Amino acid sequence: MARPTGRRPGPSGTREAIRDAAARQFAELGYDRASMRSIARDAEVDPALVAHFFGTKHELFVDVVELPFDPADVVPALFAGAREELGRRLADFILAALAVPEARRRIVGLVRAAASEPEAAKMVRELLSRELFARIVEQLGVEDAELRANLVGSQIVGLVMARHVVGLEPLASLSDEAVARAIAPNLQRYLTEPLDEG
Amino acid sequence: MARPTGRRPGPSGTREAIRDAAARQFAELGYDRASMRSIARDAEVDPALVAHFFGTKHELFVDVVELPFDPADVVPALFAGAREELGRRLADFILAALAVPEARRRIVGLVRAAASEPEAAKMVRELLSRELFARIVEQLGVEDAELRANLVGSQIVGLVMARHVVGLEPLASLSDEAVARAIAPNLQRYLTEPLDEG
Repeated sequence: MARPTGRRPGPSGTREAIRDAAARQFAELGYDRASMRSIARDAEVDPALVAHFFGTKHELFVDVVELPFDPADVVPALFAGAREELGRRLADFILAALAVPEARRRIVGLVRAAASEPEAAKMVRELLSRELFARIVEQLGVEDAELRANLVGSQIVGLVMARHVVGLEPLASLSDEAVARAIAPNLQRYLTEPLDEG
Repeated sequence: MARPTGRRPGPSGTREAIRDAAARQFAELGYDRASMRSIARDAEVDPALVAHFFGTKHELFVDVVELPFDPADVVPALFAGAREELGRRLADFILAALAVPEARRRIVGLVRAAASEPEAAKMVRELLSRELFARIVEQLGVEDAELRANLVGSQIVGLVMARHVVGLEPLASLSDEAVARAIAPNLQRYLTEPLDEG
């Protein structure tokens, strides 16, 4: 006999509810101030359930830390078009991701976590290196591709900080189209132009 | 009669010791994890003295939050030379500041504090706007100068995150000269070139 559909979700729904709450809290409060208790409250479950499913806060963070897109699909797609428009395609992709609340929360959460705690910074570094930079390096196929990927990362992290964490104006309120035009040539230079002529 | 010079500093020395310890702890632990107690321990004073001199952690942070250089001197000096080498001069100046441990601690502390807590982000935004961006805007003297200052800020914050917080390699280990060459043209574009042609 089917159980009535209640407010409380089943085990897999509970797990997802906890992960969503954790992603939200890590983004909004930062790693340090998010607690197992506050995450449980947000997910409307008992704190013991959070520990049961995920172990420690650190383990929960590792589980939740992920990019809001699959780099295995995204990176080759970005590189598929004209090489001289790569910076603009990358800018458009990042700004489109940041326009989706759930994806923005994840990205801001990653940036804030990296800034809050050396362990979290290490996890973010490993995630970026393994999932994102390695694929960009493969697609670029040049000798200094790792450095180029780092420089692109620095501009994107800085943009997330400036627009979504610190809220610098007028940048934070600028249209995505205007931001894309402003940053695309700089991303393009980091990706494909000489880096030793400054 | 002069008192013997002991290990424990006098009142103004104590105040400075607390400020130094606070700057160090905000940089190393982040705003959230630095506590009045840990700052007192680092400064080798009683926690009650920290509260006596500075009030709350928030008030101590406001007191400690400052740039490790005087923008009233630095910004006009940066703008004094050839306009087309502004990006390189700015890159050299930032990298020189980051090479001094005490200055690097302050800058990293600002970036980490901004990421950890909305109140701290607001203070950092006000500090940057009032002390730094306003002067850059005045010197640039163009209509979209505020946006240009924001974009420069985004690249510099991103560089600090990538090199000194997350530790992206090879960027983190690259020589200052190579980093300056890599970022200077991008800073130059943000400062003086058209922003709507991406």
